[in-house]
Amino acid sequence: MALIFTAQMYSELKILLFFQCIFSTLSFISNHQIHPLDSLAPSELTQVQTIVNNSIKCSSSCQSLSYHYVGLYEPDKQIVLSWLSDKHLKKIPSRQAFVLARINFKNHEIIVDLNASAIISSKVHDGHGYPLLNFAEQTAANMLPITYPPFIESIEKRGLKLEQVLCQSFCVGWFGEEKTKRIVRELCYYLDGTVNLYMRPIEGITVTVDLDEMKIIGYRDRLIVPVPKAEGTDYREMMQKQPVNSPIKGITMLQPDGPSFSIDGHIVRWADWKFHLDFDMRVGPILSLASIYDLEKDEYRNVMYRGFISELLVPYMDLTEEWYYRTFFDSGEYGFGLCATPLVPAIDCPGNAVFLDGYFVSQDGSPGKLQNIFCIFERYAGDMLWRHTETAIPGKVFTEIRPEVSLVVRMVSTVSNYDYIVDWEFKQTGTIKVNIGLTGLLETRADIYTNTDQIKEEVYGTLLAENTLGSYHDHFLNFHLDLDVDGCENSFVKAKLQTKTATDKSSPRRSYWTVVSETAKTESDARIHLGSSAAELLVVNPSKKTKMGNNVGYLLHPGSVVNDLLSADDYPKIRAGFTKYNVWVTPYNKSEKWAAGTYLDQSRGDDNLAVWSLKNREIENKDIVVWYNVGFHHVPYQEDFPIMSTISNGFELRPANFFEHNPVLKVKPLGKVKWLNCSIECHLHFSSTS
Amino acid sequence: MALIFTAQMYSELKILLFFQCIFSTLSFISNHQIHPLDSLAPSELTQVQTIVNNSIKCSSSCQSLSYHYVGLYEPDKQIVLSWLSDKHLKKIPSRQAFVLARINFKNHEIIVDLNASAIISSKVHDGHGYPLLNFAEQTAANMLPITYPPFIESIEKRGLKLEQVLCQSFCVGWFGEEKTKRIVRELCYYLDGTVNLYMRPIEGITVTVDLDEMKIIGYRDRLIVPVPKAEGTDYREMMQKQPVNSPIKGITMLQPDGPSFSIDGHIVRWADWKFHLDFDMRVGPILSLASIYDLEKDEYRNVMYRGFISELLVPYMDLTEEWYYRTFFDSGEYGFGLCATPLVPAIDCPGNAVFLDGYFVSQDGSPGKLQNIFCIFERYAGDMLWRHTETAIPGKVFTEIRPEVSLVVRMVSTVSNYDYIVDWEFKQTGTIKVNIGLTGLLETRADIYTNTDQIKEEVYGTLLAENTLGSYHDHFLNFHLDLDVDGCENSFVKAKLQTKTATDKSSPRRSYWTVVSETAKTESDARIHLGSSAAELLVVNPSKKTKMGNNVGYLLHPGSVVNDLLSADDYPKIRAGFTKYNVWVTPYNKSEKWAAGTYLDQSRGDDNLAVWSLKNREIENKDIVVWYNVGFHHVPYQEDFPIMSTISNGFELRPANFFEHNPVLKVKPLGKVKWLNCSIECHLHFSSTS
Repeated sequence: MALIFTAQMYSELKILLFFQCIFSTLSFISNHQIHPLDSLAPSELTQVQTIVNNSIKCSSSCQSLSYHYVGLYEPDKQIVLSWLSDKHLKKIPSRQAFVLARINFKNHEIIVDLNASAIISSKVHDGHGYPLLNFAEQTAANMLPITYPPFIESIEKRGLKLEQVLCQSFCVGWFGEEKTKRIVRELCYYLDGTVNLYMRPIEGITVTVDLDEMKIIGYRDRLIVPVPKAEGTDYREMMQKQPVNSPIKGITMLQPDGPSFSIDGHIVRWADWKFHLDFDMRVGPILSLASIYDLEKDEYRNVMYRGFISELLVPYMDLTEEWYYRTFFDSGEYGFGLCATPLVPAIDCPGNAVFLDGYFVSQDGSPGKLQNIFCIFERYAGDMLWRHTETAIPGKVFTEIRPEVSLVVRMVSTVSNYDYIVDWEFKQTGTIKVNIGLTGLLETRADIYTNTDQIKEEVYGTLLAENTLGSYHDHFLNFHLDLDVDGCENSFVKAKLQTKTATDKSSPRRSYWTVVSETAKTESDARIHLGSSAAELLVVNPSKKTKMGNNVGYLLHPGSVVNDLLSADDYPKIRAGFTKYNVWVTPYNKSEKWAAGTYLDQSRGDDNLAVWSLKNREIENKDIVVWYNVGFHHVPYQEDFPIMSTISNGFELRPANFFEHNPVLKVKPLGKVKWLNCSIECHLHFSSTS
Repeated sequence: MALIFTAQMYSELKILLFFQCIFSTLSFISNHQIHPLDSLAPSELTQVQTIVNNSIKCSSSCQSLSYHYVGLYEPDKQIVLSWLSDKHLKKIPSRQAFVLARINFKNHEIIVDLNASAIISSKVHDGHGYPLLNFAEQTAANMLPITYPPFIESIEKRGLKLEQVLCQSFCVGWFGEEKTKRIVRELCYYLDGTVNLYMRPIEGITVTVDLDEMKIIGYRDRLIVPVPKAEGTDYREMMQKQPVNSPIKGITMLQPDGPSFSIDGHIVRWADWKFHLDFDMRVGPILSLASIYDLEKDEYRNVMYRGFISELLVPYMDLTEEWYYRTFFDSGEYGFGLCATPLVPAIDCPGNAVFLDGYFVSQDGSPGKLQNIFCIFERYAGDMLWRHTETAIPGKVFTEIRPEVSLVVRMVSTVSNYDYIVDWEFKQTGTIKVNIGLTGLLETRADIYTNTDQIKEEVYGTLLAENTLGSYHDHFLNFHLDLDVDGCENSFVKAKLQTKTATDKSSPRRSYWTVVSETAKTESDARIHLGSSAAELLVVNPSKKTKMGNNVGYLLHPGSVVNDLLSADDYPKIRAGFTKYNVWVTPYNKSEKWAAGTYLDQSRGDDNLAVWSLKNREIENKDIVVWYNVGFHHVPYQEDFPIMSTISNGFELRPANFFEHNPVLKVKPLGKVKWLNCSIECHLHFSSTS
């Protein structure tokens, strides 16, 4: 292979060393005992590389070994829980790695035991699909068109400058082909006066690259349409004409006494919360063992064993020859973690944030650092945890207010054009709120049109600028939520809000609604289409009750409900599986991590959540996993050009009869805030009697 | 009448003089020209009182005059717009007041012209229903039970102390009765060791008070159940046992150079936004004439002529004799503005907030001040307007980020037990985001149960604590949104996302979705049930197009969709009307302001949005009003006891082909923030090249 792109090179490329704002990254990570769920450290990743490289005794065949994923092969859940319950007595469970590698053009799945310094399992995946792409092969493929004579001719025919052309690798999906090769399409863009390449697609050319052979195996130049102009596309401040709108004065979040959370290894503690946070090159942030301290019980109580984004599907709604296949799986094809971007202090996260790094492996298996990949900060947005003003008691007014402060864990993944802002927010109430922000650049299609008047055919998008169509598309993020509400054995309850007719004339009212709860016995009971009826979705612990006799539980509160509109027989829907319903519940199975399967590139939908769920296993009073989709239908508008402002969707996990009463009743007054140039001290807490 | 409750008394009751935190209310309001949409000033309210009092030449009949509402009778829209377009040449349109008064036990609707010092219209409303209650009559009614012998006997029978009993007035709704009197029910609660009266209902007693006669006309003591205990109900900090959970250190929003907005009279200017904000004793905040400056067109462009909460329905789902009628209209029965509570600086709103006052009239027509009824502040919550990191260009990394700062206008209305936090948030992107936070105290029912095991019947709620049922209920807030997108004549477009099957084998794909837009011709086309299908709801200006040819528009983006589950023939649904659909569109009509009608107390649904909309008027290319419901189904959980943490829902109005491109592309860098004890200056804006 011409270019070996090392982790070192990639790190250098991604780490931003130039900050306008000087900051200090606090040394929050102390020397700590390794936790069984800690991601593999750089030294461990190097050890994996050595063990695997040695095992295949590569000499001349070395060029055909490439790494696509290395991550923690986590210990069995019971082992982790047993270690946790008595961790001072037991040594840490064996550290193991899960490796996806291509060896001599075959998909290998390898489990390495680091304690034993040995491979304990190795198998060839001879089913469909391929592992996620690594950066090196994408970079190599991207270089091919510009030295390929037919492509050079196509560029010349369009009157474009070759040195301003930039190509990117796109997975091709699967559309019923019997045999597949490991190919990508190269889509090429034009710079020449802008850095916003995505607004300047060179339309009409299909370049197919065989990644194993690393050569172009297909080429077609179907049609020539104008490349949209550069003018108005560059979003950098330096490229704007002098802005003239009214300025907003400086504003920031201030914590003069520093943050209230602590980080010990990968364990974050804040308010009553405690959780483990780590990074995976496929899925990004993994939150584990989230538990909350119950003041009355004087113990930490489990809420979530693991939560992460298991897959991300982005199907475009354009059937033209160069577009129909664009149905991307950003986790399984490109690596949602791998695409994470270093966060810029005081800008991507507020000035009071603390940053953490993550590690990945490059094509050759060597570890690379992704610096400042997470930020953690406390948020005060001017809102209230709760309040009440009581004026009913004659001669007295009581006002009692608690301002809301929460803890945010953030990662931003920039998968080519799109920037996904992932926020896991922990609230003092016991709620975990997940918010996905979408910003960055649209994928646009060039066409002949300069005004909607000219459009007489289906163009699959909105005319955003001259020759620029913003294509209709969706985003579906599937969350793997292994809730363990006060223990592993849980049940999933659909509490339907059902209208009842008051027919017996005993009441002047003619109707009301009440709650009719159905406990899901098997997986089929828990496949849910949201939107058509009102229901509360609960994960309860059937063997734990409150003093009042209610089952201890947590509620899944959806955000905006977005359903997949593709027909059931369409390939991207078959491949994803998970978009067929908004909510799924499965029994815990260590191998069922990634909702659309392990090998997403050209997958055929034979190993995904929809298939697993067909077993219709029992899920009542079992260790269960909830899978929930956060979706976006994106109809672009001109405001999305040339860069789109953030749009959001998400969900909440709220305690529901988990506590005996409001857990923030006894929340302590906040610390004092000293105002700048101001000697007055101010409690962020209010209690008044007049 | 025994007690005349004056505005002065009420003001004194509601104004909180005791703040733990010293603050300064900045004098933002300069001497200004009166704006035609300014609410009536205290002097104008006094003038209204004088004119009305004189006109009815009251002598001995004075005691039968009571004021229930006085608000601005706003000039016709065209007059306001014409004044605005050339305001230096024209004198301000006549100042007029709309008065709802009870004169000799009849509902009077009076329009007073203040310039002419005369009543210009006066009519008796002889239809169904009564105006909103005033505080004085509620206070008087609340005093009746405790001197009423049968009630005293009931209290004694329960072994309670009369001096710890507190009663409140509740509207009775309408359930098909042929004749009605102006009555309320008195519901009584027990203090005795708590200020949280709502957790200690004295169940089983029905006290009916005739407000005109101000006497008890009905009494029934149906059943005795235990009054829930006081223990664990008081939410005040001083009443908690020493809290022991980990403290959160001080955190605040800091703007060392002060806010970036200005207030001139009632006109607020911030970033590119300009709007008029005022207070109404019925609906609370009214936002008018919201327009945004378009840098390229170098002009302010209209977005919304008026927006406010037109009505608020809270139906309970309990059919027991003492509960079935609890279907409250918090605006039309109690006055959502009248119930607004003074905001506590640095607690209800962050330290950088500025406060405004509002005015109401008391029973005798005299004006009263509601101090600090609004706060306005800039919010920085650590989020981003937009961002992108570009790593595709070899050897270069571009990161461009704009942090998000928004402007929040807040009011809190405490309607007895519930505290509604109303936020209108203006974003630099052109989006107006409305968020409703619900907190405060549940309305609970006392019953015999101390554990769910004992419950064998329908109890219409969740057992929250011993003898305490949290009743199932809804909240529906109807927003009157008179959008004027770039002018008055607008159309409402439902842009459906429709699945298309790719049947012709021309594409390997089998389906996609596209946008099929339908312009609503008449009102019936624009009555929308959300949730069942995907659609974008747009208000467009059919005569204004972008350069690309797209219709200039704004998008209504719903939050969580909540539908009214009551049967169509149930009384509260008939009376409200507006809950039958999530979205309605009507042609502008000055008299159609309050979605459930003017006279809500015991209304019969003969004058509401559902009735107006039956006319099925034309709404294409007309001056239209959108009515949107924000809903909550509330299934209480033990976490809601004894006080509930804030839950939220809302919607957004987003520009959709309103601008030619992203309007925040040229947003200026934020001002500099000086850190405490820190000489480093930090731009809250980021642009990097490496």
